[in-house]
Amino acid sequence: MALIVQKYGGTSVGSPERIAVVADKVIAWRNRGNDIVVVVSAMSGETNRLLELAGAITDRPVPRELDVLLATGEQVTIALLSMALEKRGCAARSYTGPQVHIRTDSAFTKARIREIDDRRMRADLSMGRVVVVAGFQGVDDEGNITTLGRGGSDTTAVALAAALHADECQIYTDVDGVYTTDPRVVPEARRLDRITFEEMLEMASLGSKVLQIRSVSFAGRYNVPLRVLSSFVEGEGTLITYEDEKMEQALISGIAFSRDEAKLTILGVPDKPGVAHSLLGPIADANIEIDMIVQNVAPDGATTDFTFTVHRNDYKRALEILERTATGMGAREVSGDDRIVKVSLVGVGMRSHAGIASTMFAALAEEGVNIRMISTSEIKISVVIDEKYLELAVRALHAAFQLDQPPA
Amino acid sequence: MALIVQKYGGTSVGSPERIAVVADKVIAWRNRGNDIVVVVSAMSGETNRLLELAGAITDRPVPRELDVLLATGEQVTIALLSMALEKRGCAARSYTGPQVHIRTDSAFTKARIREIDDRRMRADLSMGRVVVVAGFQGVDDEGNITTLGRGGSDTTAVALAAALHADECQIYTDVDGVYTTDPRVVPEARRLDRITFEEMLEMASLGSKVLQIRSVSFAGRYNVPLRVLSSFVEGEGTLITYEDEKMEQALISGIAFSRDEAKLTILGVPDKPGVAHSLLGPIADANIEIDMIVQNVAPDGATTDFTFTVHRNDYKRALEILERTATGMGAREVSGDDRIVKVSLVGVGMRSHAGIASTMFAALAEEGVNIRMISTSEIKISVVIDEKYLELAVRALHAAFQLDQPPA
Repeated sequence: MALIVQKYGGTSVGSPERIAVVADKVIAWRNRGNDIVVVVSAMSGETNRLLELAGAITDRPVPRELDVLLATGEQVTIALLSMALEKRGCAARSYTGPQVHIRTDSAFTKARIREIDDRRMRADLSMGRVVVVAGFQGVDDEGNITTLGRGGSDTTAVALAAALHADECQIYTDVDGVYTTDPRVVPEARRLDRITFEEMLEMASLGSKVLQIRSVSFAGRYNVPLRVLSSFVEGEGTLITYEDEKMEQALISGIAFSRDEAKLTILGVPDKPGVAHSLLGPIADANIEIDMIVQNVAPDGATTDFTFTVHRNDYKRALEILERTATGMGAREVSGDDRIVKVSLVGVGMRSHAGIASTMFAALAEEGVNIRMISTSEIKISVVIDEKYLELAVRALHAAFQLDQPPA
Repeated sequence: MALIVQKYGGTSVGSPERIAVVADKVIAWRNRGNDIVVVVSAMSGETNRLLELAGAITDRPVPRELDVLLATGEQVTIALLSMALEKRGCAARSYTGPQVHIRTDSAFTKARIREIDDRRMRADLSMGRVVVVAGFQGVDDEGNITTLGRGGSDTTAVALAAALHADECQIYTDVDGVYTTDPRVVPEARRLDRITFEEMLEMASLGSKVLQIRSVSFAGRYNVPLRVLSSFVEGEGTLITYEDEKMEQALISGIAFSRDEAKLTILGVPDKPGVAHSLLGPIADANIEIDMIVQNVAPDGATTDFTFTVHRNDYKRALEILERTATGMGAREVSGDDRIVKVSLVGVGMRSHAGIASTMFAALAEEGVNIRMISTSEIKISVVIDEKYLELAVRALHAAFQLDQPPA
């Protein structure tokens, strides 16, 4: 008897008919002797409907109230799914995030989970009930409703799986697994049977939309085996675990890319200790996430140049903040570009193989793609390039590393 | 500086545009130096939309889950109204029923308020914020979401007004006050400037739809002055208070009626102590409200006959229960009729005036209306008649008591 946490996204619960299908699926898993906790998203279209209502009221909704509004989306789904389960004779209980004490910080619209009280869920499971929890939401120390931001239902599922020491966390979605890259860009893209947490983390952080980065990070930290599968097609999906001997020995697992990038540059900052913090602190304080950071000492030796990337939605705000900071610091110039994208090679095989970077740069050079920034980690090489080269670059790299072929 | 609790119903908050109008109205009251707590219903149509979703899943939704579902309706409105207030520079905070600890029993879909913790609201008011609370909902001792049943938002408003010792509780609705009877039935019906709690209680309990009975009862018990006004038309509305010298000295204040009645009769029950409780206990246990009760000793002297009325929606269920009970008690016969209505004269003037009943019965007899049951209280006379006579009876009584004329 295993404890399984399942998460069904907005498309999977997009209508009463689809909710009925999910109920049947949940019961099938339960009838195989498993304890089941289900996390659901808002029905597809519902979050946008709510945002439109807010938009008809104000251009700048107060974040606290936006969370109160958006949290209703998942609450509708938990009630409907529980009704569907009960109708089929399966005892079920629905809970909002606050009801099962999913405690978060108070960063409205992008809160982070701090702790979960599993007592109520365990009591229900021990009474043979399926527990249905609203994804995406929690409660802060003052009792305010918070949301985890879009895609936060995955994070909820993994956090619950961790808190409950679940045997597997299954993320049902509209794709049937993790691919070597986006099949819409490269038709030859191949589904991976397994991938490591580290690789998946890089894939997710680089814009691969299958899973939200925080959910992968959580799963890795608490060693929750994570499986991505389709709600609509039968199949094993892709299992995300720690590296082991059964793992495909691929050099490169995939190519991730992110279109929503913007780049900011500040030139001629007097070079002294603490300069990075002075520059980037105000950006972070505004809750803007900084991704790549490149620093060079300028030719004059006394000043330094910084370039960093942020999400395109945060570009204007980051630029304003940076301009203010730059004035205070006596920097020479601030500039930016929001027509850039990031393309990354990801693979644990890089650890033991040399020459990956040069193969990558050669493939890009051959297609005339100009590289604007480079950043590397142990299992990833990312390049920032002009937006217009995105598809070309991804296809060239997919072919160069023969990702359409299963590994030997 | 007064503390005013205002309640806006579903039609008043039926669209973003109307919510904006409500925000302006709230701010106008606040700018006159008042502290304001606003209670809102779900946007009109929203509750039905949610019920349709549930109906597409199951014919018999689990009551606990129905409450989880329906509670989202008001939660959407509190968020939108708070956004609208903040947009206009008015500090506001929204709260769901559970967030301000509106504690209820666990009778899902028709819960009753037990207590309210006013600390959080008082803290907000003292900081100059408008407090926006979701009507219709609360939380039971186990932390389950409950709802108070349709119209429960009025009850929420009055309960908050009582807990906060508010100076006035204003119920904004789509009518501009309490009328002598339903103007759709009697075009000459007249708006009352004032009415007593007791009269209003009878009017509400008898199917006058302006206010929910529990809200009037609450207001009376805690002596919260209650005002019914229109969201759309300027005016003083109708003030509901205790009787005083300023009160219009009307003999009869109004004629209430209720179409949703059903009548059940059990004949030949052995007459012994406790028989009423044995008969009606199981009905009450099923959370079915019993309204009028008439008991007669049967001609044989050893048995007794009971007739009572319930809401038409509960008719079938009540009949099933009664049939089971009757078998166990050796009763002769059970019958019922769900095509009946109740018409009532209401007025504190009855206390000091004789002959009201005979005038009433004469007026009905003159129109050939057959009376099926009679029940009286200190300030009310109710008759049960066949459904088809409803309009005829109400018009005849309105004319007989000259309710189209202001009192002398």
